[in-house]
Amino acid sequence: MDPRINIITLGVEDIKKSKKFYEDMGFKASSISNEHLVAFQAANIVFCLYPMKLLAEDATLKLGSNGFRGFTLAYNVAKKEEVKEILDQAKKVGAKIIKPAQDVFWGGHSGYFADPDGNLWEVAWNPHWPLGKDGLIKLPE
Amino acid sequence: MDPRINIITLGVEDIKKSKKFYEDMGFKASSISNEHLVAFQAANIVFCLYPMKLLAEDATLKLGSNGFRGFTLAYNVAKKEEVKEILDQAKKVGAKIIKPAQDVFWGGHSGYFADPDGNLWEVAWNPHWPLGKDGLIKLPE
Repeated sequence: MDPRINIITLGVEDIKKSKKFYEDMGFKASSISNEHLVAFQAANIVFCLYPMKLLAEDATLKLGSNGFRGFTLAYNVAKKEEVKEILDQAKKVGAKIIKPAQDVFWGGHSGYFADPDGNLWEVAWNPHWPLGKDGLIKLPE
Repeated sequence: MDPRINIITLGVEDIKKSKKFYEDMGFKASSISNEHLVAFQAANIVFCLYPMKLLAEDATLKLGSNGFRGFTLAYNVAKKEEVKEILDQAKKVGAKIIKPAQDVFWGGHSGYFADPDGNLWEVAWNPHWPLGKDGLIKLPE
């Protein structure tokens, strides 16, 4: 794993209200945003808002369960097969695999591990969000 | 507020164990790390581990209370007076002020707001962690 975090996603209750709050604070939503997902290109990271219930479901966890804290970190990879490689590495050094590498409905391939404190990392190959040479995502404006 | 997130801090139960996990995953701790705080310079963000109990205290919240989810985002500013300015802006657009701008024991000046879902943002002026022209923190190796 190269030392980077590509995306922070916060689970929200009212996505319109939360989008307005962050826009009022100076963040600008990318044109790829829709009614279910808001993505902001910050200077150094992609910052997303996603309904709390769907975010928990994406990680195959129930809301209110010990394992789900309402946010996820994401590590994006350039090749599909890297998803499993990173999850295997995480398991080997003490992580719990929450969702094994798999094809997902939006056309990518992803899985989740939990760190020693239960914090969730999604490892994802997303053909719609290509990575630059620096390993970082650059959203359309 | 310029669109950036300077620091993600995860509250951890066993800082030595969590440090080893992230080192095993490829992150390298900065020399400024100590027994109470581990700071990794990721490609695009500063990623910190801090004892869960102390992180809650820093935000003046109790562990297990509704307001504390075990992580904080941080927005760092170049000038001390900007801390209050950002907190005032956040309050005006709907945030709850959790800890008003104040001098803190480590020699800086900081405060916390909670977004509409209760996610915590620390706004901090830290003279020991200067900002580059891009608004980002560069830790010593």
